[in-house]
Amino acid sequence: MMTARQYEESLRKLNIVVYMFGERISNPVDHPIIRPSMNAVAKTYELAHQPEHEDLMTATSHLTGKKINRFTHIHQSVSDLVKKTKMGRLLGAHTGCCFQRCVGMDALNAISIVSHDIDAEYDTDYKDRFLKYLKYVQENDLTCDGAMTDPKGDRSLPPHKQPDSDMYVHVVKETEEGMVVRGAKAHQTGAVNSHEIIVMPTIAMREQDRDYAVCFALPSDAEGITYIMGRQSCDTRKTEQTRLDTGNPAFGGHEALVIFDDVFVPWDRVFMFREHEFAGVLVEKFAGYHRQSYACKSGVGDVLIGATQTVAEYNGTQGASHVKDKIIEMNHLNETLFCGSLSCAAEGRREPSGTYSVNTLLANVSKQNVTRFPYEIARLAQDVAGGLMVTLPSAADFASSETAHWLEKYYGASANVPTENRRRILRLIENLTLGTAAVGYLTESMHGAGSPQAQRIMIARQVNMQQKQQMAKNLCGIEE
Amino acid sequence: MMTARQYEESLRKLNIVVYMFGERISNPVDHPIIRPSMNAVAKTYELAHQPEHEDLMTATSHLTGKKINRFTHIHQSVSDLVKKTKMGRLLGAHTGCCFQRCVGMDALNAISIVSHDIDAEYDTDYKDRFLKYLKYVQENDLTCDGAMTDPKGDRSLPPHKQPDSDMYVHVVKETEEGMVVRGAKAHQTGAVNSHEIIVMPTIAMREQDRDYAVCFALPSDAEGITYIMGRQSCDTRKTEQTRLDTGNPAFGGHEALVIFDDVFVPWDRVFMFREHEFAGVLVEKFAGYHRQSYACKSGVGDVLIGATQTVAEYNGTQGASHVKDKIIEMNHLNETLFCGSLSCAAEGRREPSGTYSVNTLLANVSKQNVTRFPYEIARLAQDVAGGLMVTLPSAADFASSETAHWLEKYYGASANVPTENRRRILRLIENLTLGTAAVGYLTESMHGAGSPQAQRIMIARQVNMQQKQQMAKNLCGIEE
Amino acid sequence: MMTARQYEESLRKLNIVVYMFGERISNPVDHPIIRPSMNAVAKTYELAHQPEHEDLMTATSHLTGKKINRFTHIHQSVSDLVKKTKMGRLLGAHTGCCFQRCVGMDALNAISIVSHDIDAEYDTDYKDRFLKYLKYVQENDLTCDGAMTDPKGDRSLPPHKQPDSDMYVHVVKETEEGMVVRGAKAHQTGAVNSHEIIVMPTIAMREQDRDYAVCFALPSDAEGITYIMGRQSCDTRKTEQTRLDTGNPAFGGHEALVIFDDVFVPWDRVFMFREHEFAGVLVEKFAGYHRQSYACKSGVGDVLIGATQTVAEYNGTQGASHVKDKIIEMNHLNETLFCGSLSCAAEGRREPSGTYSVNTLLANVSKQNVTRFPYEIARLAQDVAGGLMVTLPSAADFASSETAHWLEKYYGASANVPTENRRRILRLIENLTLGTAAVGYLTESMHGAGSPQAQRIMIARQVNMQQKQQMAKNLCGIEE
Amino acid sequence: MMTARQYEESLRKLNIVVYMFGERISNPVDHPIIRPSMNAVAKTYELAHQPEHEDLMTATSHLTGKKINRFTHIHQSVSDLVKKTKMGRLLGAHTGCCFQRCVGMDALNAISIVSHDIDAEYDTDYKDRFLKYLKYVQENDLTCDGAMTDPKGDRSLPPHKQPDSDMYVHVVKETEEGMVVRGAKAHQTGAVNSHEIIVMPTIAMREQDRDYAVCFALPSDAEGITYIMGRQSCDTRKTEQTRLDTGNPAFGGHEALVIFDDVFVPWDRVFMFREHEFAGVLVEKFAGYHRQSYACKSGVGDVLIGATQTVAEYNGTQGASHVKDKIIEMNHLNETLFCGSLSCAAEGRREPSGTYSVNTLLANVSKQNVTRFPYEIARLAQDVAGGLMVTLPSAADFASSETAHWLEKYYGASANVPTENRRRILRLIENLTLGTAAVGYLTESMHGAGSPQAQRIMIARQVNMQQKQQMAKNLCGIEE
Repeated sequence: MMTARQYEESLRKLNIVVYMFGERISNPVDHPIIRPSMNAVAKTYELAHQPEHEDLMTATSHLTGKKINRFTHIHQSVSDLVKKTKMGRLLGAHTGCCFQRCVGMDALNAISIVSHDIDAEYDTDYKDRFLKYLKYVQENDLTCDGAMTDPKGDRSLPPHKQPDSDMYVHVVKETEEGMVVRGAKAHQTGAVNSHEIIVMPTIAMREQDRDYAVCFALPSDAEGITYIMGRQSCDTRKTEQTRLDTGNPAFGGHEALVIFDDVFVPWDRVFMFREHEFAGVLVEKFAGYHRQSYACKSGVGDVLIGATQTVAEYNGTQGASHVKDKIIEMNHLNETLFCGSLSCAAEGRREPSGTYSVNTLLANVSKQNVTRFPYEIARLAQDVAGGLMVTLPSAADFASSETAHWLEKYYGASANVPTENRRRILRLIENLTLGTAAVGYLTESMHGAGSPQAQRIMIARQVNMQQKQQMAKNLCGIEE
Repeated sequence: MMTARQYEESLRKLNIVVYMFGERISNPVDHPIIRPSMNAVAKTYELAHQPEHEDLMTATSHLTGKKINRFTHIHQSVSDLVKKTKMGRLLGAHTGCCFQRCVGMDALNAISIVSHDIDAEYDTDYKDRFLKYLKYVQENDLTCDGAMTDPKGDRSLPPHKQPDSDMYVHVVKETEEGMVVRGAKAHQTGAVNSHEIIVMPTIAMREQDRDYAVCFALPSDAEGITYIMGRQSCDTRKTEQTRLDTGNPAFGGHEALVIFDDVFVPWDRVFMFREHEFAGVLVEKFAGYHRQSYACKSGVGDVLIGATQTVAEYNGTQGASHVKDKIIEMNHLNETLFCGSLSCAAEGRREPSGTYSVNTLLANVSKQNVTRFPYEIARLAQDVAGGLMVTLPSAADFASSETAHWLEKYYGASANVPTENRRRILRLIENLTLGTAAVGYLTESMHGAGSPQAQRIMIARQVNMQQKQQMAKNLCGIEE
Repeated sequence: MMTARQYEESLRKLNIVVYMFGERISNPVDHPIIRPSMNAVAKTYELAHQPEHEDLMTATSHLTGKKINRFTHIHQSVSDLVKKTKMGRLLGAHTGCCFQRCVGMDALNAISIVSHDIDAEYDTDYKDRFLKYLKYVQENDLTCDGAMTDPKGDRSLPPHKQPDSDMYVHVVKETEEGMVVRGAKAHQTGAVNSHEIIVMPTIAMREQDRDYAVCFALPSDAEGITYIMGRQSCDTRKTEQTRLDTGNPAFGGHEALVIFDDVFVPWDRVFMFREHEFAGVLVEKFAGYHRQSYACKSGVGDVLIGATQTVAEYNGTQGASHVKDKIIEMNHLNETLFCGSLSCAAEGRREPSGTYSVNTLLANVSKQNVTRFPYEIARLAQDVAGGLMVTLPSAADFASSETAHWLEKYYGASANVPTENRRRILRLIENLTLGTAAVGYLTESMHGAGSPQAQRIMIARQVNMQQKQQMAKNLCGIEE
Repeated sequence: MMTARQYEESLRKLNIVVYMFGERISNPVDHPIIRPSMNAVAKTYELAHQPEHEDLMTATSHLTGKKINRFTHIHQSVSDLVKKTKMGRLLGAHTGCCFQRCVGMDALNAISIVSHDIDAEYDTDYKDRFLKYLKYVQENDLTCDGAMTDPKGDRSLPPHKQPDSDMYVHVVKETEEGMVVRGAKAHQTGAVNSHEIIVMPTIAMREQDRDYAVCFALPSDAEGITYIMGRQSCDTRKTEQTRLDTGNPAFGGHEALVIFDDVFVPWDRVFMFREHEFAGVLVEKFAGYHRQSYACKSGVGDVLIGATQTVAEYNGTQGASHVKDKIIEMNHLNETLFCGSLSCAAEGRREPSGTYSVNTLLANVSKQNVTRFPYEIARLAQDVAGGLMVTLPSAADFASSETAHWLEKYYGASANVPTENRRRILRLIENLTLGTAAVGYLTESMHGAGSPQAQRIMIARQVNMQQKQQMAKNLCGIEE
C-alpha cells in the first residue's frame, strides 16, 4: 500500500492535460485550488497505515491474500460492506469534504459482478480481463475515477438519435489491438487526482445504442484525454495569501469534465463491448454501491455538528435550550443518514460472482434522505452560528494595522476565546454551508449517485407492493 | 411451543380480574373488544409453526438447546437482534396493529443483563433466579407483559417524596418467603392477554427510593392484581353486529391499568431488591430494546401502504403522478424507519452477561423517527384515500333495504370493484389513521418506549461530541 | 335574525327524510349524534345577537339595508372578506368543530357573481331570480347547504359518458313550471341542519355535459330528497350515558349523502340551466371562497392549543423548555394558517357583479397549508398530552364503585387538579386528534374545498411564471 | 425625489472611511465588490420615477404633502403598510438581492412612534427634533442605515457589566451642543451606500444601562465613523474580468461593521437620551416593522423560481411531473411568505403618534417562516437545476480558444438554447443558493431582524393563551 507521500509522488509522474480558468495547469498537484482535493485523497492512503484505522481502511485481497487498501477491495462479505460504510464516515470526518476515492471502488465492485454476468451469458472473458486489471490496481494501490455521467445532450433522445453522436461515450473504431472511443464524462469527482479512469455507460440501452454500451479502463494520462476543471463557490479563496478564510485550508474536492478525443483502449482493458442489455444492470449495481457511499456525508455532518457546538460555546449560547435542541436535531438527522447506509450494507447479499452487493431498496432510501437532511443540518448550523458567519471581514482586515485593533476589540465575544479561533470556526461553517465544501455536502448530496427522482423510481420498483396489498386485503376481509 | 389455539385455551384457565366500562369482564377472551387483541398475540404463536417464518419466529434456547418461540429468547448474537427487527415487521404486517408480546421479550433480555450485573457487584443470585424463571417461560411458551410505567403522581417529586407513597410500585412488606408489593403500572399493552407480568422500575433512583427499586415477575392472575381496560378511539365498533366498520375485524391491541394491591412475590421471582443504582440501568437497557421493537410500525406501515395503493386502484387514481409520488414517499418513510431498527441491531454488541444488546444511540434515533413518520404516512394515506373515508355511511345503512340501493348506486366507483370492497379498504384506513389501530400506529408510536424528549436526551448523551469538535477544530486550524 | 332557539324550532318544522345506522331518524334535532352538529350551527345564530361579536357576525344587506347575519351576506368590500375570515376563526374557537354554515354563504356569493356573468353573456334573468332568492334567505335568516360534490362514478369519464347517467346531478325533465333533477351530492356537511340546499356543478363542463350544468336551490325537505348520514370516528360515544368521553359534549359536525330522486325545481330557483361554459367558473369562484373559509381551522386550532397548554399544566410539564417550544410551534403554524386566509381576503377585488371575491392564488396557497399544518399541530398536541390520552379508562369506570377509587388514586397527577378535569381535557384532545372532531380538523382539512392536488393545479395556473422568468433573465443577462 | 444617477452622484460627494481586504477603499462607489450593492439601492430611486410603480414606490408626505419616495415615508394607514410589503417584493424581484434601504424606513417609523411616546411621558421634545430630521430626509430623499445590532461582547452580561464598556454604543460625554458616543454596530446592511446612519439601542435596558439607551442620527461620513466591509461567499468573483460567473452581475448586497470612535452628535439629532425604559419598546417596534420587511424575500424567491423554471426548460425537463410539482412547491412556499407579510400589514393599527404599525404577532410569525422556507426553496432549485450548477467550468474556460470548443460541444443541451444562456441561468441559481446572494436570501433570512428564537419568544408573548384555554375548558366542561 502506498503512503500519502508516495501517492503524491505518483501523481507528479502523470502527464495529464488539465485546464482551469482558461489556461493549462502545468503542475496540478501544487495548484492551490487542486491541491486540497489531492490532500483529501491522500488521507485515504494515510489512514490505511494507522493501526487504529487498519480494520476499516484495509482488507485482504481475495485475489492475492495480501493486505490492500479497502478502496481497491472487492467486498467478500456483509462485514466488508458495513466496514465500507464506516470507512466513508471516518474519512468524511477527517477531511470535511469529498475524498473522491469511493467512486472508483464502487466501479470496481460493480464491474466485478457484471463482467461475471456477461461471461455467463455470452461465454466471453471479461471477468478474467477485469481480475487481471483489478490485481494491477490492488498491487499498485491506485486511485480510480469511476466515470459514469455523459453530457446526454437532448435528454429526450437516446444516444444514437442525438444530433451530435458524441453526447454519450462510444466506440468509433475497432482494431485487433483494441478500440477507439470518443465522448466525455461530466461532473467527474476527483478525476485529476486519479491514476485510472474507469468508464461505464450511464443509462440502460437498447440494441441501436450498442456502440454506446462500453465499459473500460484507461490511465488518467492516456493520450487524447483532456480535463477541464469545474469551478466551485468560493474556489478562489484558496489562492488568497492567507488560507484562513477558506475555512478548511487543507482539504477540498473537485469535479472536472473529462473529454475522450479518440482515445485508444487495448482489449484487455475493455470489460463490456456492445452487450447493451448489461448497460442498465451495470448502472444499477454501481448506483446501489454509490448510494451507500454517501455514508461519507455523516462524517462531514460530524464536522459540521462539531463546529456548531464549538461556535455555540464561543458565543456563550451552548446552554440555551433551543441551541441544545437544534444540535440534538442535527445529530438525529446525521445518525438517521448513517442508519440508512449501515442497513443497506447489513442487508447485503452475495452475487453469483462472489461479490457482495448492498440491498438496493435500502440504498435508494438512504440516498434519498441524503438529498434532504444535509440541507436541514446546514440550516440549523447557520441558525446556531449567528449572522457573523456571513458578515465577518476578511483575514486581510484582521491582519491590517489599520483595522486589526477595531476587529479584535469588537469581535472578541469571550475573554477566553481568541478572536482568531472564532473566525476559524465561523469560516469552517461558511465553507460547509455556502463555500467549496457546500458543493459536496449539499449539491453533490442532491445529485451525486443519481438525482432524487432516480431514487424514487427505484424505490417504487423495489418495494413489494403486491404483498403489502395482500396483507391489507386479508386484514379488512377483501377476497377477489 | 404452543399453538394459537393452545394459547387461547391457556388464557381461559387464568382467573384474572378485569374491568371495562364499569363492569367486571367474566370472560375476557371472548369479549368483543378484548378478543381482537388476543388474536393479535395468538399470531405470534401461529406464525412460529409456519415453516416459511420459522427462521424469524423461532430460536434455539441457550439454556436448553430446544427450539423456542423467539419472543422468549435471550439474544445470543447480532443475527438474533436483526431477526428480532424482522419478526416485528412481519407481525405488524400480519396483524395491522400492536401484537403486544415484544414488551415481555424486551423485559426478559434487559433483566438477563442487569441481573448478571447486580450479581457481579453484590454477589447476589439474581441471575440464577432469573434463568430458572426464564426456563419456565421458555418451556411453557408464555406471553409476558413487561410492566414499566408507574402513574408517577407529581412528576416533579421522586418516589419517596410523593404525597401518596404508592405512585410508584414499591415493597411494603418483607417475609422469609418473599415480599409484598403495592402500586400500579399504567398503559400496560396486552396485559390482559399475558400469562405473566414482569415488573421493572420506571426511572433511575437514589438511595432514598430504594424501596421502589424492585424487579419481579408474577402470574397475571396472582391474587391482588386488578386490570382496568383503557378505552380506545372507536372501541365500541367492535361490539356492533357487523364487524365491517371496524376496518380490521380480527385484530387490535389494548392497554390496561394494572393495580397491585399488596401482592405477594416469592423470592425466586424477585430479580432486583433495593439495588437502587441498577434501576436506571435496567430502564436504559429495556428502553434500548423496546425502541428497537418499533420495527413493528414498519409492518403496520406496510399494511397502510398496501391499503392506500388499493384504494387508489379502486378510485381509479393509481396512475396519477401525484398519487404515485405520495405512495413512494410513504414507502420511503416506512423503509427509513426499518433502516433505523435494522441498524441498531446490526451494530449490537455482547454484554458481560452474554446477552446481545442493541446500539443505544441508533435505537434512540430510530425511535425518534417513529414519533414522526407514521403521522406523515397516515396523512398521506388520508390524502390518497379521499374524503369518503370519513363520510361513508354505516354498514347497517348498506344492509338496510331502505338505503342499500342508493348507497350501492352512488358509491360504486368502478364496475369491477364491489362497493363492499371499497368500504372495507376505506374502513381499514380509517382504523389505522383515526380508529383503534391509530392508537397504536400513531399515539403509541409517539409515547411507547418513551416519549420523544426521552430519546432526544439519550441522543445528546450518546453522541461523542468531543470527537466531533476535535475534528472540526483540526480542520479549521484551531489549537487550544 | 333568528335566535339559536328559533333556529332549532325552525328545524323541527322541517320534514326531512334522514337515515342513519339503517333506520329512518324521526327527530333529527334530538338525535344524540346529530344534535351536537345542530348546536354548532345554532352558535352562528347565537353569537350574532351578542354585542361583542356583532361587528363580525352581522352585516348590512346590500339589498334591503337591514342588519343580517353575515352568513347570508354578499361581500361588498375587502373589509367584508376580512371579517368573514375572522368570523370563521371565532366560531371555530367557540365550537371546536365544523359549524357547517360557511358552505352556504360561499355558494350564495359565488352564484351572485356567476348569475351576473351569465346574464351579461346571454341576456338571461338569473341574477334577478337569485336576488329574489337571496332576499328570502336573508329575511328568514336561513342556513343553506352549498352542495357541490357529486359521486362522480368512474373518474376518468365525463358526466355524459358515465355508465350510470346519474353519477352527476342532471336535468331529467323540463316543464313550463320548472325542471326535474336526479342525482346525488356526497360529503354534504351540515345538510341535515339546513333549511335550503343550493346545488352547483362540481367540475368544468363541455357542450355534451350541458344537462349537468345546472345550479338551483331547494328547501331541504323538498319531496324526493333523502339524506343518509355518514358515520364518524367515535360517533357512538355520543349515545353513551355520560357525554364526558366525547371530549366535546355539546358540539360536533356531520356529513351526509343527499339523494335527489326526480325532484322538481321551479324556474325561479334555477340559477344556471345548461350554460355549460359557466360551470367551471362557478366551481372556481365557490372554491376560492371556500378555501378562504378554512380560517375556521385556526379557531379549532385555538381550542387544541388551549387544551394542550392546559394538559401541560395539569401534568406539571408546562415549564419544560421542549413543551414550551412545541406549544410555540403549534401557535406558529396556527397563525400561519390565519395569515393565509386573511391575506387572500385583504387582496380581494370587486367582480363586475359588485360582489367582492378573494385573491384566488392566495386562497389556494392558504388551503394548501390547511392540508398540512393541522396534522402537525395534532401530532404536537399528542406529544405534549402524553399517552394517557389513549389509555384512559371509560367514564363508566370512573363512575363505578368497584373501580373509581383505584382510578382516582392512580390518575390524580396533581393535588390541585381534579382527576375529572384531567380526563375532560384529555378527551377533548382525543376528540380533536382521533375522534369525531378529527374528521373535521384533519380529514376535512385535507379534502374539503378540494383535495391538495386541486390547489396545486390552481397555484400553477395562477402564478405569473413568465414575469418571474423575465426577472431572472434580466438579472443574469439572458436576451432571447 | 432623486434619480438613480443623482443618488450615485450624492454618494460620490461623501467622504466615508471604508476598509476592505485590509485596505482603505478610496472610491467605494466604483469598487467592483461594493458597486453592485450601490446599484441595488439605486433601484429604489429608479423605480420611483416609473409611472407603473408610482403607487407602490411613492407616497405623500404627511409633513409637507409632497410626493416622496416611500422609503422616507411614515405609514399613515393600513394601505401604506400593505404597499410597503408589495414594494419590498417588487424590489426583491428587480434586484435579486438585498436592496438595503428598508432598514432606514423601519427605523424612521419606529422612532416616529417612540419619540412621541417618550414626549408623552417626560414632556421632552424628541418628536419635534425627529420631525425636523424626517423633513430633511424626505426633502433630500436620503438613504438611511438603521443601525441596531451591537457587538454585545459576553452575551450573558448587560451593557454596563461588560469588561469592555464599548460593547454597546453609549454616551461618553455630554456638552451643551450635543453628546459624544462610542461603540460599534455590526452586520450593517448597506451602510456604505447610506447618507445617514440612524442608531438605536439593540435590547431592552435597565436603569444601570441608561448611558446605552440612546437613539440618534448622523451623516454617514461624520468624523470618527469607520466602516469595515464584511466578506461574502464568492465576493471576489465580482473582481474577475468577466462578470458572467457572478450570476447577477449588476446587483448585490453588503454588510459592514460601523465603528463610532468618539463621534459628536448635536442635540437636534438625538431622539432618545437615557430614557432606558423606552429602549425595549423601540427595539420591538423596529423589529416588528423589519420582520414585515422580509416580504422582499418573496421577490428574490420570484427570481429563483423564474430561474428554476428557465433551467428546467433549457434542460428539457419542464414537462416532468416531479419537476412541475417541485416548482409548484416553490411557489407555494414563496406565496406563503408573502401572505405573512401582507397579513401583518393588513392587520396594522394606528399608534398614538398617528403612525401605523404592523400586527406584532403576525409579523413574528411571518419572519419565522422566512427563517425556513427560503432554504427549502433553494434546495428545490438545486434539485431542478441539476449538478452542473456546481461543476460548470469558469467563464474564462468558455472564452479560451483551447477549451471553448469542447465546452460548447458538451454543454449544449438543446439546439435552441445557446450554451451561454444555460451558464448564465445556472450561475444565477448558484448565486442565490451558494453565492453572494445566498448570504441575503438564506443566512440573512435566518438572522436579519432577529434570529428565529427571538421570534419564538415574541410569538409566545403575543398569543392570548388564556383565551384559548378558556375556550378549551368551556368545550370540555371544565369549571375551575
